[in-house]
Amino acid sequence: MAETVERVEAAINHLLPHSDLAEGMLFEAMRYGCLGGGKRLRPFLVMESSRLFGVKRDCALRVAAAIEFVHCYSLIHDDLPAMDNSDLRRGRPTVHRKFEEATAILAGDALLTYAFEVLADHATHEDPNVRCHLVASLARSAGSHGMVGGQMLDLMAEHEEFAIGAITRLQRLKTGELIAFSATAGALLGRADPAHLNALKGYAYDLGLAFQITDDLLDIDGDPAETGKPVGQDEERGKATFVSMMGVERARAQAHMLAEQACRHLDIFDERADLLKRLARWVVERRA
Amino acid sequence: MAETVERVEAAINHLLPHSDLAEGMLFEAMRYGCLGGGKRLRPFLVMESSRLFGVKRDCALRVAAAIEFVHCYSLIHDDLPAMDNSDLRRGRPTVHRKFEEATAILAGDALLTYAFEVLADHATHEDPNVRCHLVASLARSAGSHGMVGGQMLDLMAEHEEFAIGAITRLQRLKTGELIAFSATAGALLGRADPAHLNALKGYAYDLGLAFQITDDLLDIDGDPAETGKPVGQDEERGKATFVSMMGVERARAQAHMLAEQACRHLDIFDERADLLKRLARWVVERRA
Repeated sequence: MAETVERVEAAINHLLPHSDLAEGMLFEAMRYGCLGGGKRLRPFLVMESSRLFGVKRDCALRVAAAIEFVHCYSLIHDDLPAMDNSDLRRGRPTVHRKFEEATAILAGDALLTYAFEVLADHATHEDPNVRCHLVASLARSAGSHGMVGGQMLDLMAEHEEFAIGAITRLQRLKTGELIAFSATAGALLGRADPAHLNALKGYAYDLGLAFQITDDLLDIDGDPAETGKPVGQDEERGKATFVSMMGVERARAQAHMLAEQACRHLDIFDERADLLKRLARWVVERRA
Repeated sequence: MAETVERVEAAINHLLPHSDLAEGMLFEAMRYGCLGGGKRLRPFLVMESSRLFGVKRDCALRVAAAIEFVHCYSLIHDDLPAMDNSDLRRGRPTVHRKFEEATAILAGDALLTYAFEVLADHATHEDPNVRCHLVASLARSAGSHGMVGGQMLDLMAEHEEFAIGAITRLQRLKTGELIAFSATAGALLGRADPAHLNALKGYAYDLGLAFQITDDLLDIDGDPAETGKPVGQDEERGKATFVSMMGVERARAQAHMLAEQACRHLDIFDERADLLKRLARWVVERRA
């Protein structure tokens, strides 16, 4: 996994702009928001799902970077004063604390835009149909019927009572859809058949939920030195989470159950999917 | 022109989401930011440039709407407190004044994302190569080397002295690139040859600059009842504009000269480009 992450870092670093133009501060903010930390969960899913279908590594790396640009833009905007108002991310000042707030808004906008430029480029896949597919799928996963819709629900959850079903939907939109796109990107790049595509989709939705529940647990009993952010933020904001609704023990059991369920979806791939299975178990056991 | 604008309104209205889901407020903010006013300059350029190459109207309308989504997202983010901090746009409260600031940030993000979803969809053009071309070109025009880069420069222009060359570059990035993409979209959709594509590009860059100089003039001597925004905002912010650098008379002459120059690029199309020529003259004579 470390080797994959290193390759992804290099791809991100290579793709992001860097110059001494007058507007260079914008590029610096984009780089700051994308480099230096991050688990690179989504890129890892792209790389591993691509490996299952023999996709060229350089193509997969571009898609992995594009998805990470979208993920990082969402964090930059999420951290803004009008949103979560976070000062720290991965143990460092957030983009709007390191730069100006306006620069942070623009850096997020530019990263989101750049993701689509990277996907539509010939270097990402020789078949333009596949590229269009990638663009449309990423847009759906990240847009108002996906991640941004989930962020909207997340804001509302601070003021309104959400039932457990509504929380599940919120999390599926906010983090699940982009994780699902990441895990199925390899199938799109490799023009896989529906059975294999759906196996990855099933895996990703369970994984995404397990990931989110673990995040909620870490918000309660994580070590700030490891997570890089303060403890108890959700509770402070009065946000209903899986943990506040189910209790710590049941939430933990649910996360582990989901991780096992995620792995079973991958049986169709035999041992070739072992790393994806290990990832699912790591996701619920991680301390950061 | 009125008929085209009406068709574009209908296309935008049809494409934007609308629902009674919990996150429906997000959709409302997206609609509010896109509908009800706006000159629809960019969509008009898409429709007219498409007509030159016999592009199907329904395809052109989708591209016109997508570009307007990007334009409207940029206005929503530009108006935010951390950016221009504007309360009024087109005589109505700006999106963050009508909704919450967080909702405005998300509505902008969702509109930008949706633009790429619309372009990548099969309904936009039967040839996936053309769709990829549209996605990549829009991303370049709107991203850190285009519109967002220009917005970054615009923020810096409040604190730094910019020479006339730097102001020209700023405006080319901030508004010129998206206008150029709009005017060349028809050529991309119609798979035009380079000579016709370049004619439209030349037209668009001159038109964009003429448009911006006229905007700067209206900021000084426009009628707030017609422009829908207060007079003298640029000067108040200490922003260098074409008018502050050249003086009112020279700026007005320059705008008219650019409009004529824009028209000459279109001679290659004979009288089929008459509406685009009339548009260039309207752009420098408008009062709003």
